[in-house]
Amino acid sequence: MRVLVLGADGYLGWPTALHLSHRGHEVGVVDNFVRRQYDYELGTSSLVPIAHLQRRVRVWEEISGLNIDSFIGDLTDAAFVGETLRTFKPDAIVHFAEQRSAPYSMIDRSHAVYTQVNNVVGTLNLLYAIAEIDPSIHLVKLGTMGEYGTPNIDIEEGFIEITHRGRTDVLPFPKQPGSFYHLSKVHDSHNIMFACRIWGLRSTDLNQGIVYGQETDETDLHPDLATRFDYDGVFGTVLNRFCTQAVVGHPLTVYGSGGQTRGMLDIRDTLACVELAVTNPAEQGEFRVFNQFTESFSIRELADRVAEEFPGKVEIATGTPNPRVEKEEHYYRAAHTKLLDLGLVPHLLSRSTIASILSVVERNRDRIDMAAIAPAVNWRNTSAGTPVSDDARVGSRRS
Amino acid sequence: MRVLVLGADGYLGWPTALHLSHRGHEVGVVDNFVRRQYDYELGTSSLVPIAHLQRRVRVWEEISGLNIDSFIGDLTDAAFVGETLRTFKPDAIVHFAEQRSAPYSMIDRSHAVYTQVNNVVGTLNLLYAIAEIDPSIHLVKLGTMGEYGTPNIDIEEGFIEITHRGRTDVLPFPKQPGSFYHLSKVHDSHNIMFACRIWGLRSTDLNQGIVYGQETDETDLHPDLATRFDYDGVFGTVLNRFCTQAVVGHPLTVYGSGGQTRGMLDIRDTLACVELAVTNPAEQGEFRVFNQFTESFSIRELADRVAEEFPGKVEIATGTPNPRVEKEEHYYRAAHTKLLDLGLVPHLLSRSTIASILSVVERNRDRIDMAAIAPAVNWRNTSAGTPVSDDARVGSRRS
Repeated sequence: MRVLVLGADGYLGWPTALHLSHRGHEVGVVDNFVRRQYDYELGTSSLVPIAHLQRRVRVWEEISGLNIDSFIGDLTDAAFVGETLRTFKPDAIVHFAEQRSAPYSMIDRSHAVYTQVNNVVGTLNLLYAIAEIDPSIHLVKLGTMGEYGTPNIDIEEGFIEITHRGRTDVLPFPKQPGSFYHLSKVHDSHNIMFACRIWGLRSTDLNQGIVYGQETDETDLHPDLATRFDYDGVFGTVLNRFCTQAVVGHPLTVYGSGGQTRGMLDIRDTLACVELAVTNPAEQGEFRVFNQFTESFSIRELADRVAEEFPGKVEIATGTPNPRVEKEEHYYRAAHTKLLDLGLVPHLLSRSTIASILSVVERNRDRIDMAAIAPAVNWRNTSAGTPVSDDARVGSRRS
Repeated sequence: MRVLVLGADGYLGWPTALHLSHRGHEVGVVDNFVRRQYDYELGTSSLVPIAHLQRRVRVWEEISGLNIDSFIGDLTDAAFVGETLRTFKPDAIVHFAEQRSAPYSMIDRSHAVYTQVNNVVGTLNLLYAIAEIDPSIHLVKLGTMGEYGTPNIDIEEGFIEITHRGRTDVLPFPKQPGSFYHLSKVHDSHNIMFACRIWGLRSTDLNQGIVYGQETDETDLHPDLATRFDYDGVFGTVLNRFCTQAVVGHPLTVYGSGGQTRGMLDIRDTLACVELAVTNPAEQGEFRVFNQFTESFSIRELADRVAEEFPGKVEIATGTPNPRVEKEEHYYRAAHTKLLDLGLVPHLLSRSTIASILSVVERNRDRIDMAAIAPAVNWRNTSAGTPVSDDARVGSRRS
């Protein structure tokens, strides 16, 4: 199939593009490099050095003999979106091209507005371009499990049958997102569902859990194929952050009691899930939702799992003041059978997975900026400013 | 109380501002006059001539002896929002300042994007300004009953208790909005609910039905206090449109079977509801939702009610091709007790109400532009262009 990957220079977009190419799809990649700009803004960097997109694509072609077409531009530019779709003629579009950090969206008003406008307008432009150019294109959109929040009932995959005062309907699952970023994904989901209804588009909304890991079959083939690894308080995801903290002997920053429970998955499963969605497309006119995670963990459990690898040497800082506004102890049970039904064989979290992350960190430990490790953005403040330490402002401190 | 009315130059904003002033509140008004610009874009005009805001305010002061402060600017300009709040120091803000036409939002991509960015960013700026300047300000936000769509269960006021697999929670009522405009209101509702949760703001979301009528106790005091009356296919609401069509002998344009059922209310009840929300504020940290309508009607019933006033003379064009994508026959039952509990005494739809609307139309019938009467925007088209007829382009045709 011809698959266009949007946001293909990012943490998950790049390895997904390689994976799809490796698996025999014709792949096009789109990016505007804004993720690299966030690094300049925050004074942070990927722990693992990453090559320019052009070099990545060239190295992939040399190693695999497979071509990837690149399109450099911004989804909020509707003309660019239209030109790209007309040129590449995709069967499916995998849409990672959104600002994806909850803390980044909570820095201040302008970051909240940026996040919602960027994400919502990019997706609206895409919906219009698909409707106008080729409504048979299957839109595979990355959403987040965070759209649901933590209700006191089981979370279903996108829709729930409700019986109320003697009548029954299947309705969109109620959403209680926890940041302006998560809200932007809820807005997207509603817009996409509507476009499927009125224009007969077809789309799969992948409500993804928190991803961990950095290495995949394809990125491991050459250092210039590596994807980014974020450990900072703004873009780093929790397990990757804990592994980094453990390596440098920083206490593991468990916000509050650590009872917050979330669905999680291995980066290799992200790739497999996206391919399953692409190769088993939604019906024309269908808007379907898959919950894309493999296991649920509390933050406390994750910290324990990492600390076990450093017996007696790593402190767990339970009770780190929680910068987020969220329940720290709550019910959490979420369905995630649809991707399993399509054939997903999960990589469950194991000691060897953690060892592989730790090894990535060890190999790059001289690149760790201690100033980037602390939680950086407080949900309660409306104008935190860009969360960089003084150290980060004048250059990275090496540990 | 000190009440700031946003969008106070519009159909409902203006009479609400007058009503609150008349009832003893200190009123400030905010507008950017974009509603008047839509008229230039579409080649349409209010059926009733309307004075400039400055003149309206001056006439009100002459007649009532009551002062209204004016602030001219745009809510998407965050600095303007902050300055206005700091200057006026409101106890409550009534927020009508959004692009409010479903057909306008469905004209094409750029109108969809404009509607969502304008509405979402304006409201985000307001939330940040309230949080930073005075979190005790009560935000009374106009939403719409259209956020709910037409589920096959009873619609509750904002939240619903769901029992699922043996557990129970009270969750936001699932939304199925029917246009990019309605979607923008759903986005707003989610953003506001979140701001109440993380910053302890307080807000009332008024999910309003379709409003009819034009005359209020205050606007009737002088021709220059009149509010606008829209009958065109883009901004006109259904009963006001049917009355206009009946006066000029145009068949009443019932889209499809006309079984579409909607909550509706008299313009005078809008004013009363807003005042009830303002004078009975939400608790600090509370996000509450009132369904603001008084009766439900099918579109067919409304057409019948108007046609009855012209026995044998007005045709009902049931089966007019429906430009919208919506169910034409469906279950509809929506709670609306919260405002009644606060003391609302509704003006139910009566022959005298219809007579009063017909009389407004009769007095201005030489201003009716026949070209503006037809449905103008089709939901199924992604690029309808600005929906003006050739007639409208070269000037209004007088009937």
